[in-house]
Amino acid sequence: MLCFYPPTVYNGSIAAEGWFIVRFFLASTSPRRRDILLRLGLDVTVIPSRHEEEAAAPGPMSPEALAAHHAREKLRLAEPPAGAGIVIAADTLVYIDGEILGKPAGEADARRMIRTLAGRTHRVVTAVCVRDLASGRTAAGHAVSEVTFEPLAPETVDAYIAWNEWTDKAGAYGIQDRASLFIRSISGCYFNVVGFPVNLFYDLLRQVTDGRGAALPQAMFSHTRRTEP
Amino acid sequence: MLCFYPPTVYNGSIAAEGWFIVRFFLASTSPRRRDILLRLGLDVTVIPSRHEEEAAAPGPMSPEALAAHHAREKLRLAEPPAGAGIVIAADTLVYIDGEILGKPAGEADARRMIRTLAGRTHRVVTAVCVRDLASGRTAAGHAVSEVTFEPLAPETVDAYIAWNEWTDKAGAYGIQDRASLFIRSISGCYFNVVGFPVNLFYDLLRQVTDGRGAALPQAMFSHTRRTEP
Repeated sequence: MLCFYPPTVYNGSIAAEGWFIVRFFLASTSPRRRDILLRLGLDVTVIPSRHEEEAAAPGPMSPEALAAHHAREKLRLAEPPAGAGIVIAADTLVYIDGEILGKPAGEADARRMIRTLAGRTHRVVTAVCVRDLASGRTAAGHAVSEVTFEPLAPETVDAYIAWNEWTDKAGAYGIQDRASLFIRSISGCYFNVVGFPVNLFYDLLRQVTDGRGAALPQAMFSHTRRTEP
Repeated sequence: MLCFYPPTVYNGSIAAEGWFIVRFFLASTSPRRRDILLRLGLDVTVIPSRHEEEAAAPGPMSPEALAAHHAREKLRLAEPPAGAGIVIAADTLVYIDGEILGKPAGEADARRMIRTLAGRTHRVVTAVCVRDLASGRTAAGHAVSEVTFEPLAPETVDAYIAWNEWTDKAGAYGIQDRASLFIRSISGCYFNVVGFPVNLFYDLLRQVTDGRGAALPQAMFSHTRRTEP
């Protein structure tokens, strides 16, 4: 549970020392995004969005612009329940040499991606959109991180592929999993690489709660207890 | 379970497709280090070390040298059980302006540390020592990461302190916890900041298994299944 609006803003039904609970609605099926939000102690519910990522982009655009487009569309086509709350949408893209590495189509595709990443630095962008349902106010932004893999011997790539951690992950790896063995360094927000840039999210939250937001951090921390997922 | 030595090296009692299980002994009481190793799927056991971090350093030294000293002493005074295995010791220091920020003595100390970190970039070093008990071979190294906090308003610092996440953490924060809200970016190994640099560890493992190590990654991944902690 996260409480951060004073009662004058929301007609929440549960008060805790003068603060009301805010619900977060995550328009994403990514279990990693949900985990990050739960670890922050937020009261988060996954909701559907009618946006399909496979749908064609509206035209040629940079990875950053494409991620922003997807996040915006996921938010626009999200279906939160009635009532107050904050809707969150996000989209993450992994790219190198102008090519976006999506989720691997299969083992051969995953092997190709890991070979492409080995010994080099690539980028990860996550675009985030946040909407305050009460005010209708929306804020959007994106974070870019760089990730450097060490060189990988062919047998190391084979071993990694056999481990099957690449399935359902953009770029065929998760930085929080065993691929961490091969990652020399990152530059930027770590959680962006996992799929949800926490500091950017906090910044967007402050934007949509502007005017009421001065008390945000205090309310986020003072009157709640963290609940482990 | 992690299997990576061929049977000619170890007289392990459990064979899996020709590979034997290696036990890891972690000479550290840090739950975060243990969690990282468990997430990698390693068969890790926490063991005692008679080294006391509070003991005086042998002389004036840099944070990097001091962390290396502590890690070396933890390894030297570790008490693994008889038999084969890999002993791991590590020491993490947070520092800024030449001052090492240890675990806060109390709330006031934690507040002072967070105020010091706010709006600035500091460094985190983790020194790691690894010993292969079978060969007696040892490898050591350290990783340095930079962490940049956003500026924090006094009420944000107060709110963070009230949350009590600072207890028992060097520098009064854990990058994997809610302090992530305030962390703009890092440069280097993320897991180093958590307390255990995974890529450095993998490098040291290869050093102590040199000559047998070519099959290391394959064995780490091919014949094992990850067990969640």
